[in-house]
Amino acid sequence: MIPLHTLLGFKLEEIREGYACIRVPFREELIGDPRARALHGGVIATAMDSVGGAAGMTTLVSFEDKLSTIDMRVDYLLPGKPMDLFVEGEIIRSGNRIIVTSMLAWQDDKTKPIADGRGVYNVKRVTNK
Amino acid sequence: MIPLHTLLGFKLEEIREGYACIRVPFREELIGDPRARALHGGVIATAMDSVGGAAGMTTLVSFEDKLSTIDMRVDYLLPGKPMDLFVEGEIIRSGNRIIVTSMLAWQDDKTKPIADGRGVYNVKRVTNK
Amino acid sequence: MIPLHTLLGFKLEEIREGYACIRVPFREELIGDPRARALHGGVIATAMDSVGGAAGMTTLVSFEDKLSTIDMRVDYLLPGKPMDLFVEGEIIRSGNRIIVTSMLAWQDDKTKPIADGRGVYNVKRVTNK
Amino acid sequence: MIPLHTLLGFKLEEIREGYACIRVPFREELIGDPRARALHGGVIATAMDSVGGAAGMTTLVSFEDKLSTIDMRVDYLLPGKPMDLFVEGEIIRSGNRIIVTSMLAWQDDKTKPIADGRGVYNVKRVTNK
Repeated sequence: MIPLHTLLGFKLEEIREGYACIRVPFREELIGDPRARALHGGVIATAMDSVGGAAGMTTLVSFEDKLSTIDMRVDYLLPGKPMDLFVEGEIIRSGNRIIVTSMLAWQDDKTKPIADGRGVYNVKRVTNK
Repeated sequence: MIPLHTLLGFKLEEIREGYACIRVPFREELIGDPRARALHGGVIATAMDSVGGAAGMTTLVSFEDKLSTIDMRVDYLLPGKPMDLFVEGEIIRSGNRIIVTSMLAWQDDKTKPIADGRGVYNVKRVTNK
Repeated sequence: MIPLHTLLGFKLEEIREGYACIRVPFREELIGDPRARALHGGVIATAMDSVGGAAGMTTLVSFEDKLSTIDMRVDYLLPGKPMDLFVEGEIIRSGNRIIVTSMLAWQDDKTKPIADGRGVYNVKRVTNK
Repeated sequence: MIPLHTLLGFKLEEIREGYACIRVPFREELIGDPRARALHGGVIATAMDSVGGAAGMTTLVSFEDKLSTIDMRVDYLLPGKPMDLFVEGEIIRSGNRIIVTSMLAWQDDKTKPIADGRGVYNVKRVTNK
């Protein structure tokens, strides 16, 4: 259990080899622009870092293996509406040491994503120390 | 008052023309990696989006002017420790329509930043509609 | 005719509303790592900026409209081999003022891209001055 | 000697531990926008990848050590004028496996940079295989 995920209300929807998807149920606390009632970009960025990391973790084999974020980029495509958010992450480059993931965020229509991201992760595997 | 900032406990430390700095007092809820007790990268990303946007907002002249994030990048340089976080944003390109900001995050030693970021913002000014 | 495209040997393969694709025939001058005989990452970045911009230009309506790059990101997924390179760009967010494009680079197998990119462009349209 | 650097006319100005700077003498072939006579963003991106990589290479100890670009971002701040270009790269995170560099591009006035970048490099050291 990751404390920040509990605070923000993240729900794991699906996880499989190289892929993870979470749902973020809408709550007023996630608003970043009260006038426009838009979701905060940071909620989307946080969810992207989380699903990218979770997708990367599906490749770990030992409890001692470690994964950390090297960098992340988010492109915001549409304003986030006051409704549930879905964010998925998928590995697009899987190496022994470096994992790159592609992330997508959407709300009511997955064909009209509200944001798109890239994450780069550092993997330290016990087996190749 | 931005709801997400209240939820995460952001405190405005300083704001002036083209610059904003916030402090994020440490709380267990901000942890992203319970084993390593490291701050969640999403807290840093959220704070960066916030200070970049706040720095950009110092250039707005009307209540009707609007600013939204186009994209953001975060480079994580060191793990975030379980202690207060400082994040500042500064305008590095200020246009009538586009603002680019540089962001920096540190904890006990500003000369050893834990993350560095860039944000690009879209500005819609009433006066140049 | 863009001088740098001539120097690097870029060939336009396809252009249509919101999309552009170029081919870069292999030449020894494009090598960035003589030991590994890998293409220079800058060739890929240059081609990405070019196809993103070309995709964006398909939305311009007047000769006076202008487009310039705000920022660009490239994720390198596989080493570039000493053979022809294909790079395509597609609009993923099309606004009156901001255009965001997704770019992809591949060689012999499009399903195994060697790089993936994002570009953000500033559009100044005569009609909304 | 890197073939692409010869083609584009890159000149090494300075190299020391964790730092590299090149000069790109102006030539008509480097123009990307003939109407505005602006430098091509790809020249700047290529030079940034090169100085970031060169800065990273100053940390290698064996001829067998290898460095490759994982990702790169460029923020374009001002149009590139038809004159010489300077681009420097500096290490901001130096690890055994990952190096992150900050890059800056300017022309006649270093205090008014025309672009700013970040590069992330993968280092394979013989000694920690």
